[in-house]
Amino acid sequence: MVGQEMYALCGKMFPYCRSITGDGVRATLKALQEVVPEITVHEVSSGTKAFDWTVPKEWRIRDAWIKNSSGDKIVDFKKHNLHVVGYSTPVDKIVSLDELKSILYTQPDQPDAIPYVTSYYKERYGFCVTQKQFDALTDDNYHIYIDSELFDGSLTYGELIIPGESEQEILISTYFCHPSMANNELSGPAVSVYLAKWLMSLPKRRYTYRFVYVPETIGSLTYMSQGDHLAKMKENVIAGWNLSCVGDDRTYSMVATRYGNTLTDKVTENVLGFIYPDYKHYSFLKRGSDERQYNAPGIDLPVCGFSRSKYGEYPEYHTSKDDMGLISPSGLMGAYKVMQDCINALEYNRKYKVVCLGEPQLGKRGLYPTISQKGSYDEVTAMVDFIAYADGKNDLIDISNIIGVPVKNIWPIAEKLVKAELIKVVD
Amino acid sequence: MVGQEMYALCGKMFPYCRSITGDGVRATLKALQEVVPEITVHEVSSGTKAFDWTVPKEWRIRDAWIKNSSGDKIVDFKKHNLHVVGYSTPVDKIVSLDELKSILYTQPDQPDAIPYVTSYYKERYGFCVTQKQFDALTDDNYHIYIDSELFDGSLTYGELIIPGESEQEILISTYFCHPSMANNELSGPAVSVYLAKWLMSLPKRRYTYRFVYVPETIGSLTYMSQGDHLAKMKENVIAGWNLSCVGDDRTYSMVATRYGNTLTDKVTENVLGFIYPDYKHYSFLKRGSDERQYNAPGIDLPVCGFSRSKYGEYPEYHTSKDDMGLISPSGLMGAYKVMQDCINALEYNRKYKVVCLGEPQLGKRGLYPTISQKGSYDEVTAMVDFIAYADGKNDLIDISNIIGVPVKNIWPIAEKLVKAELIKVVD
Amino acid sequence: MVGQEMYALCGKMFPYCRSITGDGVRATLKALQEVVPEITVHEVSSGTKAFDWTVPKEWRIRDAWIKNSSGDKIVDFKKHNLHVVGYSTPVDKIVSLDELKSILYTQPDQPDAIPYVTSYYKERYGFCVTQKQFDALTDDNYHIYIDSELFDGSLTYGELIIPGESEQEILISTYFCHPSMANNELSGPAVSVYLAKWLMSLPKRRYTYRFVYVPETIGSLTYMSQGDHLAKMKENVIAGWNLSCVGDDRTYSMVATRYGNTLTDKVTENVLGFIYPDYKHYSFLKRGSDERQYNAPGIDLPVCGFSRSKYGEYPEYHTSKDDMGLISPSGLMGAYKVMQDCINALEYNRKYKVVCLGEPQLGKRGLYPTISQKGSYDEVTAMVDFIAYADGKNDLIDISNIIGVPVKNIWPIAEKLVKAELIKVVD
Repeated sequence: MVGQEMYALCGKMFPYCRSITGDGVRATLKALQEVVPEITVHEVSSGTKAFDWTVPKEWRIRDAWIKNSSGDKIVDFKKHNLHVVGYSTPVDKIVSLDELKSILYTQPDQPDAIPYVTSYYKERYGFCVTQKQFDALTDDNYHIYIDSELFDGSLTYGELIIPGESEQEILISTYFCHPSMANNELSGPAVSVYLAKWLMSLPKRRYTYRFVYVPETIGSLTYMSQGDHLAKMKENVIAGWNLSCVGDDRTYSMVATRYGNTLTDKVTENVLGFIYPDYKHYSFLKRGSDERQYNAPGIDLPVCGFSRSKYGEYPEYHTSKDDMGLISPSGLMGAYKVMQDCINALEYNRKYKVVCLGEPQLGKRGLYPTISQKGSYDEVTAMVDFIAYADGKNDLIDISNIIGVPVKNIWPIAEKLVKAELIKVVD
Repeated sequence: MVGQEMYALCGKMFPYCRSITGDGVRATLKALQEVVPEITVHEVSSGTKAFDWTVPKEWRIRDAWIKNSSGDKIVDFKKHNLHVVGYSTPVDKIVSLDELKSILYTQPDQPDAIPYVTSYYKERYGFCVTQKQFDALTDDNYHIYIDSELFDGSLTYGELIIPGESEQEILISTYFCHPSMANNELSGPAVSVYLAKWLMSLPKRRYTYRFVYVPETIGSLTYMSQGDHLAKMKENVIAGWNLSCVGDDRTYSMVATRYGNTLTDKVTENVLGFIYPDYKHYSFLKRGSDERQYNAPGIDLPVCGFSRSKYGEYPEYHTSKDDMGLISPSGLMGAYKVMQDCINALEYNRKYKVVCLGEPQLGKRGLYPTISQKGSYDEVTAMVDFIAYADGKNDLIDISNIIGVPVKNIWPIAEKLVKAELIKVVD
Repeated sequence: MVGQEMYALCGKMFPYCRSITGDGVRATLKALQEVVPEITVHEVSSGTKAFDWTVPKEWRIRDAWIKNSSGDKIVDFKKHNLHVVGYSTPVDKIVSLDELKSILYTQPDQPDAIPYVTSYYKERYGFCVTQKQFDALTDDNYHIYIDSELFDGSLTYGELIIPGESEQEILISTYFCHPSMANNELSGPAVSVYLAKWLMSLPKRRYTYRFVYVPETIGSLTYMSQGDHLAKMKENVIAGWNLSCVGDDRTYSMVATRYGNTLTDKVTENVLGFIYPDYKHYSFLKRGSDERQYNAPGIDLPVCGFSRSKYGEYPEYHTSKDDMGLISPSGLMGAYKVMQDCINALEYNRKYKVVCLGEPQLGKRGLYPTISQKGSYDEVTAMVDFIAYADGKNDLIDISNIIGVPVKNIWPIAEKLVKAELIKVVD
C-alpha cells in the first residue's frame, strides 16, 4: 500500500527536469507537499554565501536539440532531459562533426544508455547521447541548439520539523537535483516524505524530526549555513541519515560516519544485521552524497548514508537506465521499513536496571514455564538474557547486539518487565 | 589415586534420591563431610525469603509406582528415582490410559533413557519413563501411586571457609539437587570436596577459600541472602567458579562471566588454553547453572562456569544415561587438575619489576649458557622473555599470555630471579 | 649509485677481524669516517660498569691454526677469521683427536659452512670448522695453536649527532662485532652511514638525529650508561631503529617494540605496508639484536628492529656463507629507501585542520575537475579523503592508514592545501 503510493509518487515526479536550481525542483517539492502539506519551501538567492561555496545562478532550459544536415532532430531534449549537460549555456550554431564530438558525452560500456553529466561550476554546454547515437554520426555538419539561460534566481529547498517530547533531533536528509532518474534520486524523497507522514500520524514522538529536501552538496551546505540551522543541528541531532538510492530490490547498504562510531552507525548496523545480514557496509571512504557535508570536520553530525543499491555501485547509476523499471514498490517499501525499524529502535532505546538481586522468579509472575525439562527453557531465553544485561550499563541496542535478538522483539519484553516492576528505566 | 577416590565418592552418593530439599541432600552432605569434616551444614526454613524467591516446602518421597490392570508394577521409583517428577504431590488412583499419558514424560530421541523432570514451583504429579515403556502401554486403566509429601521443612546447604593470608576470597560453588545422575551432578561436589582437602593440606594459602554446596538456583540465592554472605562476597571475592559436569573425558568447557572480562575469565582461559587448546569457550548466553545467580546484575561476582562436557551439550544430559559409566577417575582428575592450575596461577600471580637498567647479565649469575652459538639461546628464551615484560605493568598471567608459556613454568623462573635480586615484586 | 657505494664499503670492511673489542672494530669505524668524517670515536676502558654488565678485556689475535701429524696446516685463521672461537684464550699444544673434537664447532646442517661461535664471558679456546673438515679428521694427534691475548684495553664505539630544528631525536643504531660476515653485520653500518650522509646533505632537518655504532649488546649498554646519554635519549628520542641484516634482496622485516604501540612501530608498519605488503612483522618475542636493550624495562626507548632477511631467519646466518655474495647493491638500496621513507614520514608528520565548514569548493581554486561525470572523481579522491580526516585529530601517518595512500603522496597535497589556506597545521 505505502509501497505502491511511494512508487506512484516517483512516477509522477519522474518527467520533471530537475537540476540543482530551477522549476524542476519547485515542481518536485510541490508534489511532496501534496503528501505532507506541512513541508515548507524556501528560496535562497543566487550569490548567497554557503560556507566556502556560493549559491549559483539559476538555470532555466526550454529546449535543446541536434539536427543533422538534412534538418532531422537526431537528439531531442524533449524526448529525454538527460540529453543536455546540466547547466549548459545557450548555443545555436552549425558545427563540424569534430566540434560536435568534442561536446558529446557517452557511456561506452553501456551503448544504449544516455549518461548523466553536469557542469555546475564552469560555464559550458554539451549533449549526452548513447554510444550508438554517437557511432552513427557521419554528416559533415550539425546544427546544435540549446535554449537555456543562467540568471540570478534562487536555490530552493524544503524543510519539515516534526516536534517530539525532546528537543533532541533525528535528521532525515535527501536530495532532488537529478533529472529523469528514478533510484537516484526520486526514491529518496519518496521514502522520506512517507516516513514524515507516518511520524506525523503517531500520537507522540520521543524525538523531534528534521526532514531536509535539498539539491545535493550545494543544497545541504546552503541549508546548514542559513540562520541558526547548523547551531541547532550541532546542539540537537543525535542521529541522522542521508537517503539516496532507496528504491531497488537488490541489496541494502549503509555508509558509515567518519569514524563509524556514532549512534547512527550503531542502530543502522543493528537493524540491517537482523533484516539482511549480507548488507553492504561501506566505510566513509565510499561516501558520495550529502553525508560528505554532514560529516565534514567542524560540522561533525552523526549522519550515515542509507541505500538499497548504493550510488556508484549499480550499472544503471547516472544513466538513462536508472528509470521507473529499476525501482519497485517492494524496493521502496524495504527501505521504508528499515528506516522505521531504525527510528523505532531509537524511540525505544533506553537503559534498564533490574530492581531485585539475583535472577527474578519469573514463574510466580506467570512469565516462566512451571515445569523444567530439557528444551523447555528456549521460549524464555530472550527474557532471561535481557534481564541478565539489564544492569543499567546497556541500552536496548547494546543488549540486542549482545543477545542476538532484534530491538523490536526486546522492547515488548522490557515493557512487560517494567509493568511487573522487575526492571526500571535508568536513562 | 585422587581420581579413584573422587570416583568412589560419586558411586557412594549415586543412589541417594536428591532434590532441592530433603534427606537426599542431607545424606550427600554427610558423605562430603566424611572427606572434609570441617564442612558445616545449615538449614533454612521453608518460607524464608531469598531475594525475589522463597524457600519452598520440603519434599519427602517414600514410594511411587504405576501398576497395569494385571497388578504388575510396570514403573517403580525404587528401581530408579528418576521415574517420579521431582516435587510430585501424592496421588493414589486408577486412571485411564489417556489420563496416564498426560502425566508421563519421555525422551523420544533416546528411547531407552528416562528423562529428568521437576516441578518445583507449581504443584503437580507425574512420572518419567522411557519411550519404549511409553509405547508398550495398552491397558485401558492403570493404578498410579505416589507416597510423597510437601511440608514446612527446610533447605539444606553446606559451607566451608578455608582461611588464607588475605581476606580476599576465591569462591568454589557446586550443587547437588539431582537424583541419580553422575556427571550432572555428583562430579561437581566430588571434585570440589577434594580441592578443599588439597587446599587444607597446604602449609599456607595466599587467599581465603569459600566452598559452597547448595541446591541449584534456589540454593545459591538462599545462601547469598543469608546473613552478611553477599556483602562479604562482594567485598572479598576476586575469582570464582561454579563446578558442574566435571566428570567425563570428552572435552573441557568454560562459561564466561557476564562481560567475559574478569580475573576468573583471564585465568581460566589461560590455563585451558595451554592444557587443552580446543576447549569450548561458551559465552554467558550459554550459562545455565549457578553462574546465572553469581553474575546477576547487582550481585556481580566474577564467577565462571567450569565443566568437562557442559550441561545441555552432551546427549546423556538430564537422563538416566548420565550414570556412573559416563564419568571416570581420569575425567574427574582432569577437572581437578585444571582447577588446581587455576588456583595456583592466582596464588602465584604477582606483578614484578626488573631492578637493573637494560637486560641483566644472566651469565655471571650462572643463569645463561656461556657460549654463543646459533640455537643455543632457546633454553633461556622463557627467562629473557619474562624479564622483558617484568616491567611492573603485567601480572604473571599477562606475561604467560604474552610469551606463550604456562604460569606454572614462569613462576619458578620468577622465584629464581627474585632470589638473584634481579626482579622484585611490586604488586 | 648509493647502492653501489654501500656495497663497495661493505667489501672494503669485509676482511677485518672484528669482535666486540679490538682493532677490527677500530678499522671498521675508520672506514665509516671516510664516508662521514663527523663520526666521533670513543674508547671505554675494560672494567667500566655498564648497568648490570662490565666492559670486558680487549681481545687481540695474531694467528691460529691446527696442524695434522704431518705438520700440514689443515685449519688456518689467516684463511678465514671465523675459524677461531671469538675471544679464544691462547694455546699451543699437541692434543689427541678426542680432545681436538671437544673444542671444535661445526654446522652439521650446512657441511660446507664454518659456523660463527664466540665466548665473550667465559674464558675458553676453540676452533670452528666445516662439517666436512671435521669428518676428515683421522690422525691420532694434532697441534693446536692460538696466538691471542686478553688484556685491559677498551671498548670502542662511534657516535654522530646531526642537529635539527627540534631537540627531539631520531635514533639510528647499528653494530659491528662480527668477523667476516656481510649481511650480519656490515650491511647495517653501511646503510647507516649513508643515511647519515644524506641527512647531513639536507638544508635543514626538523629532528635531531643520533647515530650510534657499537658492538652488539655490551656496546649499546655501554653507550647508554656513559655520561648523560640515557637521560638525554629518554628525554628526546621519539623514534628509532636498530639496523641489522639490511643487505639481501629476499624480503623486508621489522621487529616490533615491547608493546608494538610506539610511533616507530606506526611509521614502520605504514611505510613497509605500502612498499612491500608481504613484509615480515615480528613481535618483540622475536627480538635478538640491540632492540633488546633499547626496549628493556626502565630504558623504554621506542626502537624497532629493521632488517631485510632478519637474523636467525635465513640459512646463511652466523656462518661463513653470509658473505659478499649474499648482499647486493639493490638489497642495501632497498633498506636505505625504506629508512628514507620512514624518516621523511616523520619529518612531514603533522596534524592538520580544515579551516572552512563543510567540504571546501576545490573547483574555484583549480583543485577539482569542473565537469561531473561517472568516474571523473577518482583523481581527486586522495585530496578529498585527506580533507575529510584533516580534523585536527589525525597526523599524516594516521590519515595515510585510514585512506590507504602513502604519506609521501599525501604530504604534497597537504602542502598545496596549506598554500590555498584551506587547512592549517595544528600540531
